[in-house]
Amino acid sequence: METEQAPRPAEPPGDLTTAITAPGEQLLTLLDRHLPRIRAQAAPNDRDSTFPAATFHGFARDGVLGATVPAELGGMGVSRLHDVAVALLRVAEADASTALALHAQFSRGITLTYEWLHGPPPTRKLAERLLRAMARGEAVIGGAVKDHGRETTRLRPDGSGGWLLSGRKTLVTMAPIATHFVVSAQAPAAGGTTLLYAPIVARDTPGLSIVDGWTGLGMRASGTLDVAFDDCPVPAGNLLARGSVGAHSDAALAGQAVSSVAMLGIYVGVAQAARDLAVETMARRSATPPAASRTLVAETEARLYALRATASAALVNVDELSPRHDMDPDERGRRMMTPFQCAKVMVNQLAAAVVDDCLTVVGGATYAAEHPLARLSRDVRAGRFMQPYTYADGVDYLSAQALGLERDNNYVSLRATRPVDSR
Amino acid sequence: METEQAPRPAEPPGDLTTAITAPGEQLLTLLDRHLPRIRAQAAPNDRDSTFPAATFHGFARDGVLGATVPAELGGMGVSRLHDVAVALLRVAEADASTALALHAQFSRGITLTYEWLHGPPPTRKLAERLLRAMARGEAVIGGAVKDHGRETTRLRPDGSGGWLLSGRKTLVTMAPIATHFVVSAQAPAAGGTTLLYAPIVARDTPGLSIVDGWTGLGMRASGTLDVAFDDCPVPAGNLLARGSVGAHSDAALAGQAVSSVAMLGIYVGVAQAARDLAVETMARRSATPPAASRTLVAETEARLYALRATASAALVNVDELSPRHDMDPDERGRRMMTPFQCAKVMVNQLAAAVVDDCLTVVGGATYAAEHPLARLSRDVRAGRFMQPYTYADGVDYLSAQALGLERDNNYVSLRATRPVDSR
Amino acid sequence: METEQAPRPAEPPGDLTTAITAPGEQLLTLLDRHLPRIRAQAAPNDRDSTFPAATFHGFARDGVLGATVPAELGGMGVSRLHDVAVALLRVAEADASTALALHAQFSRGITLTYEWLHGPPPTRKLAERLLRAMARGEAVIGGAVKDHGRETTRLRPDGSGGWLLSGRKTLVTMAPIATHFVVSAQAPAAGGTTLLYAPIVARDTPGLSIVDGWTGLGMRASGTLDVAFDDCPVPAGNLLARGSVGAHSDAALAGQAVSSVAMLGIYVGVAQAARDLAVETMARRSATPPAASRTLVAETEARLYALRATASAALVNVDELSPRHDMDPDERGRRMMTPFQCAKVMVNQLAAAVVDDCLTVVGGATYAAEHPLARLSRDVRAGRFMQPYTYADGVDYLSAQALGLERDNNYVSLRATRPVDSR
Amino acid sequence: METEQAPRPAEPPGDLTTAITAPGEQLLTLLDRHLPRIRAQAAPNDRDSTFPAATFHGFARDGVLGATVPAELGGMGVSRLHDVAVALLRVAEADASTALALHAQFSRGITLTYEWLHGPPPTRKLAERLLRAMARGEAVIGGAVKDHGRETTRLRPDGSGGWLLSGRKTLVTMAPIATHFVVSAQAPAAGGTTLLYAPIVARDTPGLSIVDGWTGLGMRASGTLDVAFDDCPVPAGNLLARGSVGAHSDAALAGQAVSSVAMLGIYVGVAQAARDLAVETMARRSATPPAASRTLVAETEARLYALRATASAALVNVDELSPRHDMDPDERGRRMMTPFQCAKVMVNQLAAAVVDDCLTVVGGATYAAEHPLARLSRDVRAGRFMQPYTYADGVDYLSAQALGLERDNNYVSLRATRPVDSR
Repeated sequence: METEQAPRPAEPPGDLTTAITAPGEQLLTLLDRHLPRIRAQAAPNDRDSTFPAATFHGFARDGVLGATVPAELGGMGVSRLHDVAVALLRVAEADASTALALHAQFSRGITLTYEWLHGPPPTRKLAERLLRAMARGEAVIGGAVKDHGRETTRLRPDGSGGWLLSGRKTLVTMAPIATHFVVSAQAPAAGGTTLLYAPIVARDTPGLSIVDGWTGLGMRASGTLDVAFDDCPVPAGNLLARGSVGAHSDAALAGQAVSSVAMLGIYVGVAQAARDLAVETMARRSATPPAASRTLVAETEARLYALRATASAALVNVDELSPRHDMDPDERGRRMMTPFQCAKVMVNQLAAAVVDDCLTVVGGATYAAEHPLARLSRDVRAGRFMQPYTYADGVDYLSAQALGLERDNNYVSLRATRPVDSR
Repeated sequence: METEQAPRPAEPPGDLTTAITAPGEQLLTLLDRHLPRIRAQAAPNDRDSTFPAATFHGFARDGVLGATVPAELGGMGVSRLHDVAVALLRVAEADASTALALHAQFSRGITLTYEWLHGPPPTRKLAERLLRAMARGEAVIGGAVKDHGRETTRLRPDGSGGWLLSGRKTLVTMAPIATHFVVSAQAPAAGGTTLLYAPIVARDTPGLSIVDGWTGLGMRASGTLDVAFDDCPVPAGNLLARGSVGAHSDAALAGQAVSSVAMLGIYVGVAQAARDLAVETMARRSATPPAASRTLVAETEARLYALRATASAALVNVDELSPRHDMDPDERGRRMMTPFQCAKVMVNQLAAAVVDDCLTVVGGATYAAEHPLARLSRDVRAGRFMQPYTYADGVDYLSAQALGLERDNNYVSLRATRPVDSR
Repeated sequence: METEQAPRPAEPPGDLTTAITAPGEQLLTLLDRHLPRIRAQAAPNDRDSTFPAATFHGFARDGVLGATVPAELGGMGVSRLHDVAVALLRVAEADASTALALHAQFSRGITLTYEWLHGPPPTRKLAERLLRAMARGEAVIGGAVKDHGRETTRLRPDGSGGWLLSGRKTLVTMAPIATHFVVSAQAPAAGGTTLLYAPIVARDTPGLSIVDGWTGLGMRASGTLDVAFDDCPVPAGNLLARGSVGAHSDAALAGQAVSSVAMLGIYVGVAQAARDLAVETMARRSATPPAASRTLVAETEARLYALRATASAALVNVDELSPRHDMDPDERGRRMMTPFQCAKVMVNQLAAAVVDDCLTVVGGATYAAEHPLARLSRDVRAGRFMQPYTYADGVDYLSAQALGLERDNNYVSLRATRPVDSR
Repeated sequence: METEQAPRPAEPPGDLTTAITAPGEQLLTLLDRHLPRIRAQAAPNDRDSTFPAATFHGFARDGVLGATVPAELGGMGVSRLHDVAVALLRVAEADASTALALHAQFSRGITLTYEWLHGPPPTRKLAERLLRAMARGEAVIGGAVKDHGRETTRLRPDGSGGWLLSGRKTLVTMAPIATHFVVSAQAPAAGGTTLLYAPIVARDTPGLSIVDGWTGLGMRASGTLDVAFDDCPVPAGNLLARGSVGAHSDAALAGQAVSSVAMLGIYVGVAQAARDLAVETMARRSATPPAASRTLVAETEARLYALRATASAALVNVDELSPRHDMDPDERGRRMMTPFQCAKVMVNQLAAAVVDDCLTVVGGATYAAEHPLARLSRDVRAGRFMQPYTYADGVDYLSAQALGLERDNNYVSLRATRPVDSR
């Protein structure tokens, strides 16, 4: 059959085992050198809630922190989210916390590249400067999305064309080494509307303070902290526009999907690590495996396969739609977000089920705080709390899409209009 | 980013919505014309357990029955199982029974093409003859795998170089119009071994009789019947060799995967049809959808996405390994079968869950025999009984692969060594 | 009821295996004689959608149709819903359809006894007359709750103190032999309010017609039909008052729980029958059971135990609260309904899971229309559509109770205010 | 025990909310006074893995540590496991670790009372002495069942009629304050058989050492440690006979069920505490609850109801069979163990599902180490590792019972014959 003879293109195999671009492949090779140390430090860092700063210094030195920066700006030029996710998966197999922190930097590279290519001139300049610094390992840019408690983070004009930022953000990952933060904030505008911005704030800005204290159920080495802002000055050029509250703009979903979809790889990696530990333990045992263990191992294999295929499909979809500026932007936003949310719901359920069954298969030894499966069972539960969309918001979004119900799908805008206690 | 500019190859989008080859696309176009009638007849044919013979005559006329026959032999040349599955999915959305029967013919085209290309000379000749007849719509070839009750279907030498076939097969799909049957059979050989063969027997062979009577829980219009053989003469050249009982040869898994993997598309189609009915019903209602319905609809969207991605990955995998004759044949067999079985376990669970939830969402009206969702809830349950591997065999296979346990993975061989009551 | 005064026998063992009152025990003994025939007719009646009229004539002759009629009125005096459920469970193990039809009569005995004891004088008289006829096997009283399609069943004054009933009811069980129907209907009242009534209408009333045609996905021998009313005259004394639309009265929940809670026994019986078939089949096989089958059998045992315990707890709770007229009637209504709904949600999920797993364990033979497990898999799905409360309404009710949200919990009233298409 | 003769109070309501005996009710009252402190210390003790010694000193002072000691011996005389479970449930709602440690003492009271009533004379004397000391709050008796690593704990004759005990036990709860340990040990006997014993060893016995170091995934304040024995002298009278390895005696199941079944209450308590936290949080929020939260809350209510009913049924069953010395002891053992194992499988699944869903409903705040729901999600996972029977052993046991397969159901004997690596 002739069709068989055609040279096969490098299509994604659907299982998140290999990168599909050359830069992606290079990133995997680079990361390989770091994995033994990441793996070795996973347990002590989890126990002590210690951020693996030395690992990240190594990342900076090797160019990993600029992996998603375009080659023209000195980066590695990994542009496919599929490949980013494969890289995060590999790191998460060794340590999920490290992968979660690294995701913040990778995500920033992708979104700033978008600003560099498509933003207004001042933003392009800012983006270029930051991207070049990321490529040199000098800029480490955390994301600060979620408000702490009942306080809303706000910008107010400083009277001379710039802004002052005040508020407090929680669950900011990679905070111990971040040199900058991209902060979700609101600003009042003429006519009573409230605009959404993402100011980029350098760590040494007056009024910015890192607030220690959060220790997680899991992901304890991800450097997740609070960051407080007390009238921090922000130049006008350092503001990324993010639409307005209540605009019901689905175009915003594209950036939100691009920003977060690669995280799926982390939870696939956690599930894979749990499976490998369980299977190795079982295979080492001399006894015939009991019926229940065979059943759970088979279910685990099947679920893990589905996890990989589902996450891969959602990633490839975002990669395909990402450059489609010919499309209606709202339509494009929804078509990127819907598969992502479907995959997120499934990954959160299946990955947690895989890890739980692995603990059951291995037995009581896993119930010790320092057992790797215990750590994985805590880490895997982070997935359901990752933006965009909690499980409840995901249900509202997916059912509204299916049933044709009107709602504001921009979760940043939506949160801004919700009673404070239920954000 | 330059990587974005490269012409994108026709990679499978991972959601089983479109074909990836031109012949696959042509098949979809051809089938489109038949879908309205298939859809309209689904309910009455299910009620009366009637095989849609007129539809299949239309298929014969239009070349659909030769879809998987190579173009050189007059067929449409659909060679990718991915595309076969997409075609079956479309048909199954209209009527799962029709898709199941059609699968038998498509599968035969694929496996006979393999015999035509790689078999010994007499087999190649036989295959060519049959394939050309399939392309002309004259040959319709059913598969007869499962023995009826406690009887084993056996070949014995006829004393003049040919064979005599006796036994009875059950669950033979498309039987009402089949012109030939490929029959799983055993023959004793020198040294006490038992060889496995797949004789191809024409319907008008003396001693062959179609036994009426089976009515299914679902898939009632798939023309599933028993076929009995009473010393049917089979020329030596009409026998496909299928290894020997107890050989523990994993090479056989390749053919078994190729033969059956496209059936995954059928169950995805059933789930999709259920989802569409539920969502259309809900969207038509004037009341605000209740909380439980929104949650179930969202879960359905997510599961359906995972179903499509998982089945697609398993199909692409088989397509990729199928021409890889450079590999170790045992390794190739396992690497085709393992993802298929993972996907089969998940598809059977998720598709049934989707259909069940759709009945819940729509409500009591679905509990009428003639309601399409009632039919879908019966049809979807066939998946777990499809070869190769029941759920129990799938668990044994997948856990043995993961844990490195020795077992005979060839289910035809395995069945031949099992106590009759547990096959 | 004097039977309440009798010294309490052994406490209910929580597994629905034995009756806890002497009349309950007598009913089980009586039913035992009928079980072989019920079991033998289950398959043919299911196939042909035939109501087992001969069985019910036997019930009439033996007093089974008056089982829940007080002894003073000639009945057997089974007053505990626990015991009613155990009886239905036993019958459902043999044939679920027969149990479902019988439930209608048992339920009527319980609720009419309540009217006889606590209703206004004309109602008491009516109730006494009907109960005595039930005890003699002469009255068979079906319930007609759900409106057919978009039509609301309504009463209007006939101008001379009586009423005229018009509308059409669907899913009326035991209809082929019913001598009377208790019909949910609305009537306009002064001030714009809409009152709810349950008129009792004799089958031979002018204007009443039995509409043939419904065939179910399952429960096909339960005699479930539509009943149409065309200006049927109803004397004022034949109306049971059921509150008003929109009253948000939770007192009504007590009667609704009493009416339906014993149905839980039916679905436990279906699950038990499936388990017994699967276990017997497995135990008969000579091969070692595969790992997956052992796991599924163990899960089935556990779920079945939970099913029995959960249903039993909900039944005992209704039995305990039923005579508690000292309590606030709204509080009593909720305290009867909440555990019932919890049990209903769990029974519907667990019973269906048990039956599905039993099909998997037994294998492909169960996929034949006439296989008893195929029938059970269709029958078990009826549970989620039984009143009161669909799954969606159950979720709204239970979450409103937990979270302190206001809603109309009376499903008859609620339906009356909903858009017709979503009832 | 005379307490059995007392007139039976109201039957158990099946929901584990109230005690059914007067001593059980007194225990609840007594515990009520301790609950505020237990609740307040739960978080810090979990964080620091600190055993709540002061709480247990209070228990000693108030007689709680003698709750299950017969009144004749100075105890509170709580003899029903149902009531023990209700007490543990209440404590677990405040802190699961405290409940788990307390369970060890309660269980010891129940089993030593059995030895006191039915054991051979020297055992009766020993049991009486210990029970009286428990009642005075002076004896605290931990159970040491599971061998550490690859070492088997063994007794060897000391040459003068006594024994020397060597080995190491892991997962010994309440170890920080235990005055004695009941240790599972093997001793070789004539004819090559291996006998099983449970020596009772005082903490100050020469050769006994408490080995610090275990920190759990959860249950971190339960005082769970290793205990090592290095030729500890054990007088012959301090040995409880526990059968022999490989005896396949099901009589032993009775004691094993009695010993552990009350632990079910702990996991119900954990699930209830999670539900209460989630519902309180939701009810406090001003926003309308989202669809997914209403669905999850309703499912939680239903599962919690099923949990309570199922655990209650298993407890009542053990209480009923416990005094049935008229029965065949093997039959009695199985009839106590089977419902217990069914309930254990369901409680472990449903309680974990409830807690997980509560985290989802409340949201990201629960992902902090110190959040009570994070603690509950770690604590609830202990259930599947509790003796007797892991999930795998439970599956083997339940499926063997259903299918009539022969196996050694005594898990202590079974473990002794298994390869060390798979215990």
